[in-house]
Amino acid sequence: MRTIEWQNGTLVTIDQSKLPKETVVLTLKNCEEVADAIRNMKIRGAPLLGAAAAFALALTAHLSEAESRERLLAELEKSAEIIRATRPTAINLFWAIDRILNKAKGFFGSSRELAAFVVNEAQKIADEDVAVNHLIGKHGANLIHDGDVVLTHCNAGALATVDYGTALGIIRAAWDSGKKIKVFATETRPQLQGARLTVYELQQAGIPVTLITDSMVGYVMAKQLVNKVVVGADRVVQDAVINKIGTFTIAVLAREHSIPFFVAAPTSTFDLTNKANNIIIEQRKPEEVTHIGSVRIATEGVDVLNPAFDATPLKYVTAIICEQGILYRNNLVKFKSSIPKRVYKR
Amino acid sequence: MRTIEWQNGTLVTIDQSKLPKETVVLTLKNCEEVADAIRNMKIRGAPLLGAAAAFALALTAHLSEAESRERLLAELEKSAEIIRATRPTAINLFWAIDRILNKAKGFFGSSRELAAFVVNEAQKIADEDVAVNHLIGKHGANLIHDGDVVLTHCNAGALATVDYGTALGIIRAAWDSGKKIKVFATETRPQLQGARLTVYELQQAGIPVTLITDSMVGYVMAKQLVNKVVVGADRVVQDAVINKIGTFTIAVLAREHSIPFFVAAPTSTFDLTNKANNIIIEQRKPEEVTHIGSVRIATEGVDVLNPAFDATPLKYVTAIICEQGILYRNNLVKFKSSIPKRVYKR
Repeated sequence: MRTIEWQNGTLVTIDQSKLPKETVVLTLKNCEEVADAIRNMKIRGAPLLGAAAAFALALTAHLSEAESRERLLAELEKSAEIIRATRPTAINLFWAIDRILNKAKGFFGSSRELAAFVVNEAQKIADEDVAVNHLIGKHGANLIHDGDVVLTHCNAGALATVDYGTALGIIRAAWDSGKKIKVFATETRPQLQGARLTVYELQQAGIPVTLITDSMVGYVMAKQLVNKVVVGADRVVQDAVINKIGTFTIAVLAREHSIPFFVAAPTSTFDLTNKANNIIIEQRKPEEVTHIGSVRIATEGVDVLNPAFDATPLKYVTAIICEQGILYRNNLVKFKSSIPKRVYKR
Repeated sequence: MRTIEWQNGTLVTIDQSKLPKETVVLTLKNCEEVADAIRNMKIRGAPLLGAAAAFALALTAHLSEAESRERLLAELEKSAEIIRATRPTAINLFWAIDRILNKAKGFFGSSRELAAFVVNEAQKIADEDVAVNHLIGKHGANLIHDGDVVLTHCNAGALATVDYGTALGIIRAAWDSGKKIKVFATETRPQLQGARLTVYELQQAGIPVTLITDSMVGYVMAKQLVNKVVVGADRVVQDAVINKIGTFTIAVLAREHSIPFFVAAPTSTFDLTNKANNIIIEQRKPEEVTHIGSVRIATEGVDVLNPAFDATPLKYVTAIICEQGILYRNNLVKFKSSIPKRVYKR
């Protein structure tokens, strides 16, 4: 099953905040329910957020009783505002919304026809994500060699996408081509996507995985226990890769140990008119740090900082792997010019 | 109250594995009980381990019914073996045992008199630790300026020592001298000594503290939210500082951001005849990573690496602050020659 699927006018997905302890299937019926699931990170992962945002508009279109095309467009704009307000950092969400809205605006027909068109376009976004991830896997697998031990952070797997994964897509593709590789997964505090999701996916795929805390990355690199890093991205800007908090720390350590640091990111993650300084880094609630599940782990009343992402300047990035191929840092300027600059509505 | 106290022939301390949720006072009656408390990290922190090891031998001496000096010495040797086997990395434990044993061997008198001498020597080790920490605080406070924001890792506070603390001793001394400083504390997975103990101590002292996950150190440094790092040490060797897992990661990040990285360590932590490669890094049980308390956070059946310490090469260390003063890296060779080389029995 895909991580997210359109089924009879509903959106079916899995509650990622409960995995792997519980497998709770969510059937989301309208845009607000999708927004809520995104806000609470039941749905998370940059490419998946793109597909979910598209399907949220599809739900609005599907449920609409609008009798005119203009009226439906207005409803879609309203839903778009709701989804845009959920999480500010991952660009895929804005990318998918803009793609749906722009195409809807260019579509002429009845409100009923427009609704069907929007549902179809959301489905296309989801289908393309799977195809794109397979391409990223294919390109990236060339960078992974037999015997490599790859460190990854957070979860950029099937669960972070519609299927297959970006960073884990590369690991899957390398493994499936017969390369005997191993993976180190960081637990990824505060939300533990590494311990909960990446470990789960790799175990299911039969790929050997060792779990470490985020604080052990320096140790495993100094001991030469890993020789590659592959992570995903929430947004690629002109001068940096924005990804899950802790990514920058790993990138600095990788460079210090001359370990290649690869970022797997579909071009839907690219936001090359922007620079890192302009990007809002989402600050999440303190309870994610002071508690694990319902268990308080920190002293009462402590101040907490809880940024969900950090920015890794491109100088730390060896290459970005997208569906179009491998982009080495040195060729970034050349590459950048070949990617259309999109201006997203915030 | 001190973290550890000799009271009427028993050793009274606080169960640090339960803090700050529960304040459980432990009354340890013999060497085996102390060994057990050390193994389970109810007693932890390098300087405290030294005092606890000394008191463990004091308990053996106190309880002994040996009728000869030689017989008591044999009992002490046996207890020393038990304590040495608890945790391999922090040198203070070995240092305190050797100091007690060497002094006991040089003491001539009845077994009763030797027992009293051993108890007295253990008490001296504890008293000296407090004095040493105040000296470290006094020297180190000169490095901390009004307005500084200091990042610390794990817990090198009163709870890691007999009283006052090493790294937190410096922070306390700076604060008490009227400097308005703030602290960032890393939670310090897997055992969360930062979230549980450092935050607790700083709150009690009224020093402003912000808690972050270990993965956020790169972020706070890149955002220039901290301008000093002060940590403790479990062992200072010729070429590195061995300290809680995650220390090396922070040191690399500090150097990358030109942030001074200070290590607070009494000379009882120095093991300058040794190099990092010779030091056994204790590997602890996987459950510390896969669980928090009794709550499983990771997928079942996953392989785990759980080193308790890492080695930070001296090139990343700006200065070591010990009771004798501030040792700048550049003067290390000169400084080294002034510290007596001890050869510890393993």
